[in-house]
Amino acid sequence: MSYTLYYSPGTASMAVHWMLIELGVAFETRLVDFESGQQRSPEYLRLNPAGRVPTLVIDGVPYSESTALLMLLAERHPAAALSPAPGTAERCEWMELMVYLANTVLPAMRDWFYADTDGDPIGADTIRNLARSRIEAACERLDKKLADGRTYIVGGKLSTADFLAVMLMRWTRNMPRPAMTWEHIELYVKRLRSLPSFITLNTNEGLTDWQNTAV
Amino acid sequence: MSYTLYYSPGTASMAVHWMLIELGVAFETRLVDFESGQQRSPEYLRLNPAGRVPTLVIDGVPYSESTALLMLLAERHPAAALSPAPGTAERCEWMELMVYLANTVLPAMRDWFYADTDGDPIGADTIRNLARSRIEAACERLDKKLADGRTYIVGGKLSTADFLAVMLMRWTRNMPRPAMTWEHIELYVKRLRSLPSFITLNTNEGLTDWQNTAV
Ligand SMILES: N[C@@H](CCC(=O)N[C@@H](CS)C(=O)NCC(=O)O)C(=O)O
Ligand SMILES: N[C@@H](CCC(=O)N[C@@H](CS)C(=O)NCC(=O)O)C(=O)O
Repeated sequence: MSYTLYYSPGTASMAVHWMLIELGVAFETRLVDFESGQQRSPEYLRLNPAGRVPTLVIDGVPYSESTALLMLLAERHPAAALSPAPGTAERCEWMELMVYLANTVLPAMRDWFYADTDGDPIGADTIRNLARSRIEAACERLDKKLADGRTYIVGGKLSTADFLAVMLMRWTRNMPRPAMTWEHIELYVKRLRSLPSFITLNTNEGLTDWQNTAV
Repeated sequence: MSYTLYYSPGTASMAVHWMLIELGVAFETRLVDFESGQQRSPEYLRLNPAGRVPTLVIDGVPYSESTALLMLLAERHPAAALSPAPGTAERCEWMELMVYLANTVLPAMRDWFYADTDGDPIGADTIRNLARSRIEAACERLDKKLADGRTYIVGGKLSTADFLAVMLMRWTRNMPRPAMTWEHIELYVKRLRSLPSFITLNTNEGLTDWQNTAV
């Protein structure tokens, strides 16, 4: 089993990078330099025709889509139990949540951050407004789910859904209404950010903001 | 194991309905009448707080998200082998494709069909234009994948990805550029539409268009 992660700090590769650290498996990383547009270089486009990160090379073959990579890693490393066991009710809830984050929150984030280049820049504000309302509605829904004070978002233990959810919440930090302004999300995120794997992740990606202040 | 599917003909519930028929398992259906806005009735919102279809009640508990339901059904009925086996390269390709369809094509479809109500109707054309360009780019990408003449979209046999892909392609039938105008997609769809389960699905949902003409 060999893994090479193509990443850019703080982007959609972050959840996968976090999971690899948490799993404690051997993996290599390759920085994709967005400043110089390396994601659109011929070499990178051979690995990822959409020119996006992450790409995870698994046993020599490149795959994309952060949500898919998280789900794949969970089933390739069952001992770590980073997804609920098949056949359980928690499994159904986890699957529903993974897909919800993947097809409601992630695309709205894409719209928020890439409205000027994915579509006609003239309409970018319209795209961003709809994206913002969808992201805030998602925060509302996640905050309700977390209102019972649970430590992990689904299944009573750490799972891929936490990596994905916390990454998405991080992306709202400079948005008009950051996720951390929702009471239960704030408590949840603070607990998750205290995980050693999250701290290592930030160190390894060279990120300094959106971390718990030292005590 | 008990299944009750809440559906509306031709909508996102279609892929799940198709899979249940193909699996040959026992299930019940409940029609959600969009004409009378039944998806927003208090009774339905208790099952599906977003007011959408499908909802699949699994052993008494309601779950949503068509893509999640397809993946769950595949793992709950391993003998049918409607997803590649875990640990294989086909599995990785399948997972990537399922997530790609779920988070690139499905949300663009939502934008295309619901631009007037999900956001400010004044900006609806902007939303639809971006959605259209994304849907056509996805058709281009899927057509390339199918260019080798494969019968099934991934893994060399029928899988959940076929149910999802064909449903999405059906939704383009009245769009400016229908998926069937791509050469390899057309051949692929015609083969898949000849499956007995697809014919039963159309009969059961009372659909009459977008079928292979009788011979
Ligand atoms: N659906 C993809 C989205 C990936 C994506 O949009 N990545 C962004 C960074 S967050 C990217 O690579 N942007 C570079 C670009 O579009 O040029 C996933 O979840 O992996
Ligand atoms: N992400 C959801 C999307 C479901 C969805 O948008 N369903 C539409 C029909 S295709 C719906 O229920 N529309 C009714 C409404 O929004 O009022 C899924 O894949 O299940």
